[in-house]
Amino acid sequence: MNNFELFGNIKKAQNFIDSVKTGNFLFSFVISYTQTCEIPEITFAGANSDSIQFTPPADAEYLHYGYCKTIDKIPMTPDGKPTPALLTKTALESSSIPHLVINAGSKISPQLPYIHTGLTFGKNISIEFAMTDSQIAKAVDYGRIIGRSLASMTDCLIIGESIPGGTTTALAVLRGFGFNAKVSSSIPNNPTLLKNQIVDSALSRLNSEHPYNVVACLGDPMIAFVTGMLSSASEISKVLLAGGTQMAAVLAFASKIGFNEDNTAIGTTSYITSDASANFKTLVSDIADVPILAVDPGLKNSKFPGLKAFSEGFAKEGVGAGGSIIASMLKTGNTSTNFMELAEKEYHRLFTSL
Amino acid sequence: MNNFELFGNIKKAQNFIDSVKTGNFLFSFVISYTQTCEIPEITFAGANSDSIQFTPPADAEYLHYGYCKTIDKIPMTPDGKPTPALLTKTALESSSIPHLVINAGSKISPQLPYIHTGLTFGKNISIEFAMTDSQIAKAVDYGRIIGRSLASMTDCLIIGESIPGGTTTALAVLRGFGFNAKVSSSIPNNPTLLKNQIVDSALSRLNSEHPYNVVACLGDPMIAFVTGMLSSASEISKVLLAGGTQMAAVLAFASKIGFNEDNTAIGTTSYITSDASANFKTLVSDIADVPILAVDPGLKNSKFPGLKAFSEGFAKEGVGAGGSIIASMLKTGNTSTNFMELAEKEYHRLFTSL
Repeated sequence: MNNFELFGNIKKAQNFIDSVKTGNFLFSFVISYTQTCEIPEITFAGANSDSIQFTPPADAEYLHYGYCKTIDKIPMTPDGKPTPALLTKTALESSSIPHLVINAGSKISPQLPYIHTGLTFGKNISIEFAMTDSQIAKAVDYGRIIGRSLASMTDCLIIGESIPGGTTTALAVLRGFGFNAKVSSSIPNNPTLLKNQIVDSALSRLNSEHPYNVVACLGDPMIAFVTGMLSSASEISKVLLAGGTQMAAVLAFASKIGFNEDNTAIGTTSYITSDASANFKTLVSDIADVPILAVDPGLKNSKFPGLKAFSEGFAKEGVGAGGSIIASMLKTGNTSTNFMELAEKEYHRLFTSL
Repeated sequence: MNNFELFGNIKKAQNFIDSVKTGNFLFSFVISYTQTCEIPEITFAGANSDSIQFTPPADAEYLHYGYCKTIDKIPMTPDGKPTPALLTKTALESSSIPHLVINAGSKISPQLPYIHTGLTFGKNISIEFAMTDSQIAKAVDYGRIIGRSLASMTDCLIIGESIPGGTTTALAVLRGFGFNAKVSSSIPNNPTLLKNQIVDSALSRLNSEHPYNVVACLGDPMIAFVTGMLSSASEISKVLLAGGTQMAAVLAFASKIGFNEDNTAIGTTSYITSDASANFKTLVSDIADVPILAVDPGLKNSKFPGLKAFSEGFAKEGVGAGGSIIASMLKTGNTSTNFMELAEKEYHRLFTSL
């Protein structure tokens, strides 16, 4: 598989690929929200601070309909770079991989049928606990229920997420569990200082080492819910955690509450694994014996600056883009070049029809 | 397959069985509500008139957890006969068939993760239109979305429902589409006169033959939503409509908006196909070239009166019991006797632990 780089336990990575490449995939897209994203300059996952809350449902609508209902255009950075959902949609559509949307605490509900959990969004960890212990317990329980159901329907459950501000809560959870994390960001000029200030402030409130308490104090509903999904789903099927730093935080929590390492891999883009400002590969190997599959989406060769930007450190990952591209390539045999061409078609469709 | 009786196009029925028996099944459970059930003496799907609204979510909770959260005990008739969900649960569990709950207009939301549609419950057809045309359009659209997604995850999508009062709205829809329907009931002494009065009153308001208008005037959200599911799912996978009269109404609406007959079958209990007060087999063959598979759950031989009652005309069907039992037998090779013994175990568990 020349399309992928493998990190961590290479034998496990190869076994994972061998066991899923002839099977079925199911993409689950978990949308959520943390008020931490309302801190100025913490995220660019939206055209402006008010529109950030619409990004997760709009990503879900775009994945599904090919356009958004909650907002007029697809989610973009303030200077017009598109959401990584563009890559996810291209991947899923080119390979006919089905998907389901799960609302695990999004502030705004998407205008399509989705799996309802009744979870509420997380609070701003720079000023208070994100969630109560009982909210964490419910998120994990409901995650377990959904993980069990979805894993029973597929050979490989892909889990992606959309939660603006989520790299900051992920950093906090990783630090809370004692891991020396330097997280990626959706912005090339990663606001590391600001993130660390927020995390330090949140860590100062941490009053117990109990894993639920760590996530309640420092995390967000996505981390708790996806950890529940992973813990049950990995007992039944393969699970591809599609994402970067946020999935490392999931892995950290999951390593405390239990999951099946042998059925789990992280799938992400090479933009994450080669990010010099983060330490993703070391971090994951410190947390668990779970391999990383990294794909180069080939976008550095794109003629469209909006796509090329992903290879230059913008967004890098999100909406499970990396894992979806990996699954689509395994299913179709597409190369990075094929994928880039399909993404260009989708880009062209979007930006000439808008 | 000695466990099943086949009706209608026998060759199609046999083909359907042959093509699904080695594949995967997915059970989707659609819960809904029509205010028509509030008419006194129209249904016994609940211990009393106030508790009827809790029956669909409680059925969903029981299927999932093995007990209910919304109410204390599992749904029962006023004299203590259990919900047919007992049969569905026995079938799904014995064969490890996964399930998902879809809320398509239930008055009360179940306390578990479920697929949210945002549909509202149907109004009482004896006094007003059940739904607006745009509500019907949304129900059909959302049904199509979910049908497409779920059918992509399985070889055979089983669709069951729980909607108290639903045989009356089904009768109305069937009559509205010009079919001479005599419907089954969850009560042996079928209140035919009352049902026909309600239907006559509803039919007097019917002001257009447009299929959406017929269902808006006479139907309920379940019929519209499941019809949408059938229309898209049957293009992708096999679909087993698990139910009696309600699924005939779905078939009637679907035959107007389009679906793939060759991938569709009705799966039900022999208590429905042998019900002398209804004309189920003729009715279905009048509507579409869709075969009926009927299973004898073997309950006439049960030592428990509460189970034996199903064979004596109580409940007969519901919560997709018949279709679930058929799928479970295809998957496990169980006979009616095996199934009855499993149902007795579940009955015993429930009524000694309560």
